[in-house]
Amino acid sequence: MRLRIDLAYDGAAFHGWATQPGLRTVQGEIETAIATVMRLPALASLTVAGRTDTGVHARAQVAHVDLDEVDPVVLTRRLQRVLPADISIREVTEAVEGFDARFAALERRYIYRLCDTIPDPLTRGTVVTHRRPLDVDAMNAASTHLLGEHDFASFCKKREGATTIRELRELASVRTGGRIETTVRADAFCHSMVRSLMGALVAVGEGRHDPTWAGEILAGGTRDARVRVMPAHGLTLEEIVYPPDHLLAARVAQSRRRRDDPR
Amino acid sequence: MRLRIDLAYDGAAFHGWATQPGLRTVQGEIETAIATVMRLPALASLTVAGRTDTGVHARAQVAHVDLDEVDPVVLTRRLQRVLPADISIREVTEAVEGFDARFAALERRYIYRLCDTIPDPLTRGTVVTHRRPLDVDAMNAASTHLLGEHDFASFCKKREGATTIRELRELASVRTGGRIETTVRADAFCHSMVRSLMGALVAVGEGRHDPTWAGEILAGGTRDARVRVMPAHGLTLEEIVYPPDHLLAARVAQSRRRRDDPR
Repeated sequence: MRLRIDLAYDGAAFHGWATQPGLRTVQGEIETAIATVMRLPALASLTVAGRTDTGVHARAQVAHVDLDEVDPVVLTRRLQRVLPADISIREVTEAVEGFDARFAALERRYIYRLCDTIPDPLTRGTVVTHRRPLDVDAMNAASTHLLGEHDFASFCKKREGATTIRELRELASVRTGGRIETTVRADAFCHSMVRSLMGALVAVGEGRHDPTWAGEILAGGTRDARVRVMPAHGLTLEEIVYPPDHLLAARVAQSRRRRDDPR
Repeated sequence: MRLRIDLAYDGAAFHGWATQPGLRTVQGEIETAIATVMRLPALASLTVAGRTDTGVHARAQVAHVDLDEVDPVVLTRRLQRVLPADISIREVTEAVEGFDARFAALERRYIYRLCDTIPDPLTRGTVVTHRRPLDVDAMNAASTHLLGEHDFASFCKKREGATTIRELRELASVRTGGRIETTVRADAFCHSMVRSLMGALVAVGEGRHDPTWAGEILAGGTRDARVRVMPAHGLTLEEIVYPPDHLLAARVAQSRRRRDDPR
């Protein structure tokens, strides 16, 4: 049976989501925990919706795992008991027919948090302090040059054989108190894409470039060293959007056809 | 000249506010930093509005210090540069005539944060996870038996010669999402008073006692072992209220007359 796992984590003490030998990762911790509480002879592999990098947080991550018959309520409770405090299993449920955490997802939503005034020490784990004042209007003007379906190669670490074409649906910054929150939505993201987009917005927000500069970088088509990859701890995966149940299978087939490594 | 220091801190890695030999405290860190950047031959002593215990946070703490002539803007910048990330100096300003961080304060406001559902790992440093569901209406019913001016000896660690009479002005719990936030306002607090009040509310919220039980504990008049002192990390000092400038001196005189160790 396929299980859907809804979870959250504080990325600070993890080398990202994906299992790496000898390193503490979210996937590694959960796969080990499942094997322990289910007394499995080997690890059962998790598939995730949004593979987060080292230090990136998730408030609403989704993964799936295929296991022999198990009571999801019991598994939820047992995982909550054995997992460390920086991972929180919200719920384990039996996945509906056709569900695939990665390929069925329609959209990933992240928020990047910046503070350009006096930092709040109580939120310093999820908010990046920026020492220069930022012009949010200029940042949003830059965003207009990035929205839509484009090849985001300029903002990605390239992976062999994977497309870097993505549909960026929202890149909206708002100031709340001394903090700036940028919501970023796309069908999927390439490696380090959100943090690179933020690097471009921050360069414009500081007044170092005009808003149109973001569009020039995009048009360049190859990774540009002038774009700073912003720190990981300001980034939190906030939502994964799936289609209604009866459209899951079609969405999975469509994603797989594009062979585009959606993350 | 007297300087007013507005600051915030994450209490997790401090043995509370007050200097203790060999232990890391907020007062110790700041006094050392002031002596360093001002090149003082000895530490200048800070006076604080709300002396917080080990692990308690502050988002809007106020302290004062008396120093020789100094530019507050320069001192602010230098302190921000040398202090660690878990202390944030919001602003150092020249105090108005008659100001005293401790004795001039009219009111201290704290918030205690609890989560009785699935915890958010990103806020686990400031929110206490409680494993049983809490009835917020029952908690607020209990609060009605505690509000007003009373001897709060049942909820305090007694200090020789100090009164435990306090005026509790607000003790209001609200549920926001899976979280319960309790706002606590009083003219001043005794040692561990907020966390003991919360212990009483939680006992009622769990259904272990009727709301009237809180009033019985209060009437008991001595520290009661049945009242749990709730964990420190759920507590944050959110505000210190001062009178208008022309009433500062009168307030200081009044506080000193009461000799009641306001904190």
